Amino acid sequence: MIGSEGQRVRSATRYTYLGPEGTFTEAALRTLPEAATRELVPMVSVPAALDAVRAGEAAAALVPIENSVEGGVTATLDELATGEPLMIYREVLLPIAFALLVRPGTRLEDVKTVTGHPVAQPQVRNWLAAHLPDAAWESSASNADGARLVREGRYDAAFAGEFAAATYGLEPLVTDIHDAQNAQTRFVLAGRPARPAARTGADRTSLVVWLGDDHPGALLELLQEFAARGVNLMRIESRPTGEGMGRYCFSVDCEGHITDRRVGEALMGLKRTCPKVRFLGSYPRAGVDPDDRSGALGAVRPGTSDGDFVVAADWLARCQDGRA
Amino acid sequence: MIGSEGQRVRSATRYTYLGPEGTFTEAALRTLPEAATRELVPMVSVPAALDAVRAGEAAAALVPIENSVEGGVTATLDELATGEPLMIYREVLLPIAFALLVRPGTRLEDVKTVTGHPVAQPQVRNWLAAHLPDAAWESSASNADGARLVREGRYDAAFAGEFAAATYGLEPLVTDIHDAQNAQTRFVLAGRPARPAARTGADRTSLVVWLGDDHPGALLELLQEFAARGVNLMRIESRPTGEGMGRYCFSVDCEGHITDRRVGEALMGLKRTCPKVRFLGSYPRAGVDPDDRSGALGAVRPGTSDGDFVVAADWLARCQDGRA
Amino acid sequence: MIGSEGQRVRSATRYTYLGPEGTFTEAALRTLPEAATRELVPMVSVPAALDAVRAGEAAAALVPIENSVEGGVTATLDELATGEPLMIYREVLLPIAFALLVRPGTRLEDVKTVTGHPVAQPQVRNWLAAHLPDAAWESSASNADGARLVREGRYDAAFAGEFAAATYGLEPLVTDIHDAQNAQTRFVLAGRPARPAARTGADRTSLVVWLGDDHPGALLELLQEFAARGVNLMRIESRPTGEGMGRYCFSVDCEGHITDRRVGEALMGLKRTCPKVRFLGSYPRAGVDPDDRSGALGAVRPGTSDGDFVVAADWLARCQDGRA
Amino acid sequence: MIGSEGQRVRSATRYTYLGPEGTFTEAALRTLPEAATRELVPMVSVPAALDAVRAGEAAAALVPIENSVEGGVTATLDELATGEPLMIYREVLLPIAFALLVRPGTRLEDVKTVTGHPVAQPQVRNWLAAHLPDAAWESSASNADGARLVREGRYDAAFAGEFAAATYGLEPLVTDIHDAQNAQTRFVLAGRPARPAARTGADRTSLVVWLGDDHPGALLELLQEFAARGVNLMRIESRPTGEGMGRYCFSVDCEGHITDRRVGEALMGLKRTCPKVRFLGSYPRAGVDPDDRSGALGAVRPGTSDGDFVVAADWLARCQDGRA
Repeated sequence: MIGSEGQRVRSATRYTYLGPEGTFTEAALRTLPEAATRELVPMVSVPAALDAVRAGEAAAALVPIENSVEGGVTATLDELATGEPLMIYREVLLPIAFALLVRPGTRLEDVKTVTGHPVAQPQVRNWLAAHLPDAAWESSASNADGARLVREGRYDAAFAGEFAAATYGLEPLVTDIHDAQNAQTRFVLAGRPARPAARTGADRTSLVVWLGDDHPGALLELLQEFAARGVNLMRIESRPTGEGMGRYCFSVDCEGHITDRRVGEALMGLKRTCPKVRFLGSYPRAGVDPDDRSGALGAVRPGTSDGDFVVAADWLARCQDGRA
Repeated sequence: MIGSEGQRVRSATRYTYLGPEGTFTEAALRTLPEAATRELVPMVSVPAALDAVRAGEAAAALVPIENSVEGGVTATLDELATGEPLMIYREVLLPIAFALLVRPGTRLEDVKTVTGHPVAQPQVRNWLAAHLPDAAWESSASNADGARLVREGRYDAAFAGEFAAATYGLEPLVTDIHDAQNAQTRFVLAGRPARPAARTGADRTSLVVWLGDDHPGALLELLQEFAARGVNLMRIESRPTGEGMGRYCFSVDCEGHITDRRVGEALMGLKRTCPKVRFLGSYPRAGVDPDDRSGALGAVRPGTSDGDFVVAADWLARCQDGRA
Repeated sequence: MIGSEGQRVRSATRYTYLGPEGTFTEAALRTLPEAATRELVPMVSVPAALDAVRAGEAAAALVPIENSVEGGVTATLDELATGEPLMIYREVLLPIAFALLVRPGTRLEDVKTVTGHPVAQPQVRNWLAAHLPDAAWESSASNADGARLVREGRYDAAFAGEFAAATYGLEPLVTDIHDAQNAQTRFVLAGRPARPAARTGADRTSLVVWLGDDHPGALLELLQEFAARGVNLMRIESRPTGEGMGRYCFSVDCEGHITDRRVGEALMGLKRTCPKVRFLGSYPRAGVDPDDRSGALGAVRPGTSDGDFVVAADWLARCQDGRA
Repeated sequence: MIGSEGQRVRSATRYTYLGPEGTFTEAALRTLPEAATRELVPMVSVPAALDAVRAGEAAAALVPIENSVEGGVTATLDELATGEPLMIYREVLLPIAFALLVRPGTRLEDVKTVTGHPVAQPQVRNWLAAHLPDAAWESSASNADGARLVREGRYDAAFAGEFAAATYGLEPLVTDIHDAQNAQTRFVLAGRPARPAARTGADRTSLVVWLGDDHPGALLELLQEFAARGVNLMRIESRPTGEGMGRYCFSVDCEGHITDRRVGEALMGLKRTCPKVRFLGSYPRAGVDPDDRSGALGAVRPGTSDGDFVVAADWLARCQDGRA
């Protein structure tokens, strides 16, 4: 528990993150320019990191939300979908490559036991089979925790970010280990609800949408609310609502900003026709330059730009006034 | 040509209609309360009736637009789709039943030749086969014109509205002739563009929509603009654009009024995504009581009432302001 | 009434057509190679031409079905949709250009009255306004009939096909008159139901589809049956069913042949989900070369070729057999 | 590694499951009648349980696939989507209620430390807060493993299935603990590819579908392949393909059996239009009686029964033969 009386005044400059120190989450957080002027506080879990923000003990929390190999981070998805609302203001994309951390002097042939977070295991499985086929794997609570256990002598080696070596007095025996090409983790910076991040032209909007009961075509209709306005989906994940098998809500990211007319109209369409919608924020897309004209940004479908919406609204007003 | 200098001042109280006198169109026009205080001027064709309005020589024109047996009246559909814009402010539904008009004294067995407008022929074909199997049919320019030709002795009998008998000095030998049950013709009162008729809650909105070239799914997308907002289509007719075989525009009626939010959003969607849209008006549905709760009016799909739109717009604004 | 006992034997070589002689329909019929060896019989109306086929008095009938300026020929659409079934085996596309036919010696300045079929009038309206602004128009039962009336001295000039001049002893004073560029009429050759015309690779399939009552989304679902299989629509026309205002069936043409798998699956989808479907035939598209690779033929959507269907059916069978 | 030479002969009667002994998976497996005559072998992980089947060392494996609180079991989803194909032949639904297992004699007030599988924690969080607010939670590798650690004295209590008490010499201090009403886990019995389970009329079909690259509407089209044939979706989960952020495949369950015509046609549609489809089996739905007419089974959409498909196929054949 952080945040006693005396500390409350400092909460505005405090960011929590999924700890412990030395995780990829900390590395991701340190890519943000403002991290240099914040107090960065590791927390034991995603719920703990986010609850500190809800409680006013921190201004924001950085938590992983999606990994290109392992998929959505369900703790984060579920925490953002339920409880007191939070909003996303930034995202960070971090390439994921592991180092095999050992106590100084350990050689590869000495490694009989390895550890790491369960999520790391499938990302290094092939490498292990090729280079340490006989080593026994045991999971640890986090990659950083695995590093600590190596230092303590419990295991011979830990998979973790190379940046964790110094923190735990280990050395990277092998670096840049990753079974999948282009493995990345996406992290989001969540804070209490406020104005969304400013529109950049290369934005992402996040929502959670609950569908009506027992309506087989409801998901199709959800997607059509986006399609009808030319809004591209980037990610969709079903999550159980906890009300019984077969009852889901959907965590959805779409291209664009809530102030883009097409996005706003799609959101209103969802709000009108679905029992519940939670807006989780519009924020700049990491790794995409709004001024990039190479096509990476994706084309806006004809008829769905803000200009098109303004022209159509003006035409409608003139029709209603008899001036069309 | 009506409307010389001296008459111009009277044009505000003049209604044209598809003549000649004694047609169903005149009968439909006389069902309008204001007809009693208007100068009603028959015109030789639908274009002539509408052009008089365009030229400022008449305030409005009543023309047939659709018959439940024969379908759309293409002259009206095409005139409204092209040329100087006009708008529809009223519709009239008239049950269509024919009388067999003869010179006084004629008996059924005397009838060897019958006439009527070509559109009447398929509506009385079965009756003719049953009751006058040997009579020869010849078409006339209008039902009323057929009555005139009977009076002049050119044919023995004419199919026309019973109300035309007096005008032409004939008598109805048989009445209430109609092969199809519930045959009706729908007429529209068209005027120069101005504010649409006031919303009643039981309204119809008319449009003409042009689709982009060579896009197989374009019609589907047109329908989805309506479906996405829960707006029901009432009528859709393809009409050639005149630019070559296989090029069509669509004359469309939907339920609701342009000031209904769902209708407005659907219209804006069409405006944004189709090369051309012409708004032809929103006007009360004939024969439907806005206060009828028996279901004849059709239910509004959940989530698409004006109240739902207002709630959603308010929610969007709060999201954008960080107050959701 | 054609077809007495003695003539019955000749019916197999007899084609009827919408007469009288000298119409565009006759000209279209004569473009068919087999017309040279058939007895060509003009009939007074589309129903008469088709009923002769139904009665076994003729092998086939050529009737107009669509004009690029005036739209669908409702008599043909309705005759094919109702009554004893007929099927389409061929289509003919004929460019429509009118000649102004006059008695020999007549000069343009002598023309005070002109006639023609009502359908011709909108196609020459602009030409008339420019070249004969003071001439009075009166409609005749057909273009050929108008020519006959000119010969009889009732009118000064008739709009008709140039080929009609000789038949009626007239001469073409002006030729190639057509307000719209590329005006064409499409004719179909209808016979009694039998095997469809052979697949050519550039085919058209015609249907009539009735929708269920009171189901606002029914038309959308009709179109989706085609879209789901990548079948492109070429034409869709609503026609009243005669059961009251607002009740329609749809006359539909799509690309492809009933033996194309995607077309067959779409047709079965319609058959399953619509109250009534009438198959009107698959036949070669006029004016489209099946071997044309220039793109005029339209691309088949990926995944919808016959080969794709065969691969998928084979995969399904293997899945069902446990060999996938 | 199970399955040495001598054991190979016994593999046909061996079922593996996600161990260790005493897990909910074992309890689920024991609900299957044939479990009584099988050798049940616990494995350390889902991949290990399934790989034993792939290697021919076991006839089938029971693994959890979905929890109504925690969502999809990603290890199972990913193992079934990739690697050597497996198929699902049965599903088991198990209500999830925890017992608090303690060493005999322990009272609730004695419990200072509790353990359990990480997945159990969110399912008992509220109960813990209410009844043991001061107890410290630490995760164990499985619920059964937690029980073992309690017996060894490392923790005071473990959350596990009540059935695990006897195995580990503990006693259930509190039973029927579950924060969510109706919490259930769904397990699947996977074997090597063979004929699907026989159709019962209350079946589920499982698939994995890969979408084409960079096609925003691809998910919508996937859903439409089902919707166009009236096939209801039961579950859809996106999983990363491992080819980079934003690249997903979809794990999908639909109602019905692969031998149901509507399901077969939908599957062929996916096969034709998606780059890759993996059929994972059709099998009886747990907890649904095929003969139940109370509506629990869900209605088949009109026009999509096998009978409707047969009628439509027969009609198509007659159209193609000229006998419609």
